[in-house]
Amino acid sequence: MRIDILTVLPDLLKSPFEVSIMKRAQEKGLTEIHIHNIRDYSTHKNKNVDDYQYGGGAGMVMSIEPIARLIDKLKSERDYSEIIYMTPDGEVLDQGIANELSLKGNLMILCGHYKGVDERVRIKYITKEISIGSYVLSGGELAAAVLVDSVVRLLPGVLNDETSALTDSFQDNLLSPPVFTRPPEFEGMKVPDVLLSGDFKKIEEYREQEAYRRTKERRPDLLGEE
Amino acid sequence: MRIDILTVLPDLLKSPFEVSIMKRAQEKGLTEIHIHNIRDYSTHKNKNVDDYQYGGGAGMVMSIEPIARLIDKLKSERDYSEIIYMTPDGEVLDQGIANELSLKGNLMILCGHYKGVDERVRIKYITKEISIGSYVLSGGELAAAVLVDSVVRLLPGVLNDETSALTDSFQDNLLSPPVFTRPPEFEGMKVPDVLLSGDFKKIEEYREQEAYRRTKERRPDLLGEE
Repeated sequence: MRIDILTVLPDLLKSPFEVSIMKRAQEKGLTEIHIHNIRDYSTHKNKNVDDYQYGGGAGMVMSIEPIARLIDKLKSERDYSEIIYMTPDGEVLDQGIANELSLKGNLMILCGHYKGVDERVRIKYITKEISIGSYVLSGGELAAAVLVDSVVRLLPGVLNDETSALTDSFQDNLLSPPVFTRPPEFEGMKVPDVLLSGDFKKIEEYREQEAYRRTKERRPDLLGEE
Repeated sequence: MRIDILTVLPDLLKSPFEVSIMKRAQEKGLTEIHIHNIRDYSTHKNKNVDDYQYGGGAGMVMSIEPIARLIDKLKSERDYSEIIYMTPDGEVLDQGIANELSLKGNLMILCGHYKGVDERVRIKYITKEISIGSYVLSGGELAAAVLVDSVVRLLPGVLNDETSALTDSFQDNLLSPPVFTRPPEFEGMKVPDVLLSGDFKKIEEYREQEAYRRTKERRPDLLGEE
């Protein structure tokens, strides 16, 4: 899977893909992540990529022309399964959407910025609009990084058994049970006896109960309750 | 507001705070963001910060000892309003939580990693657990960056009038209306006449109608409907 990210702030996205799992996924050839500076496709002498909004009001709007030039170029080079726009008014990302996207071909991701992109970009090019949650960020760059992380870690071969995605929260609509590691006692706080018992049936029961209890307490919506 | 981020992957968090609004907020002295490597507080000869989980199973668990050492040190140096743990089973971040946190004093943010942190860290230290959405990430680092961005941009003086947070999506439980900028026509696609009319009353009406229509269509939950 190749992922192209279109942004006015390419520097912001440098480090998230250069370490840990995202780095290894690229080194293993399981994904290619390309970051494009929209500014390089501006024909203005000052490399402007935004302009005042029609009708007045605070906040600049990302112009269609440089974005259209960049998207047309990428589309002429290869096929894309989705051209995604990161925006607060998009469909709210959940594990189901991440799972679906992980099965697709190449993805293009446009990061919104300022007051957003000229609506005509959305009409002409965008096939999917995604929000990572009901809050506002300075731009779509971190949102794009979050989306890419959630998708790439699901690609076959990216995670090893030790970090397997199968027991993650949300994959079975349950939160994870509490976890403990050494030491068995820390400042009077002990690890639950059952986890030290070596009785795997009891341990499994404990974990199932705790996962269910925690989900019911914290996220009843995942159980279809409110 | 001072923000301390505790992580096993400090390199991942380098670029997001070094550009644009987050950079300017720090340069203006409106916030201080400090990133701490939990590994520096490990007493293991290999600087281990994780260990196998009690009861068996895939995935490592972040040990309590180095984290406790780091948190105790920071708490001895200054007061913190909240010690936040970024975790998929936390309270789901929304604009209301971001607004609240922007009014607090210093914040400490612990990034979850691997299968999570030893439960005793949560019991002893954590005052608030936050998830940025119902999806799994490789670690809490990007989630912490998202949280910090959503909060810092609300601090007085961080945004100028041009990028004012007041007209953002979610602040009035409505999504933003579509926006347009030059040119008035692009490949046959025209800007709506009303936005070119100069009639500010009509423009205001158009925007209100579109914001409501878009919210009803895409996020009826924000209007209290489902």
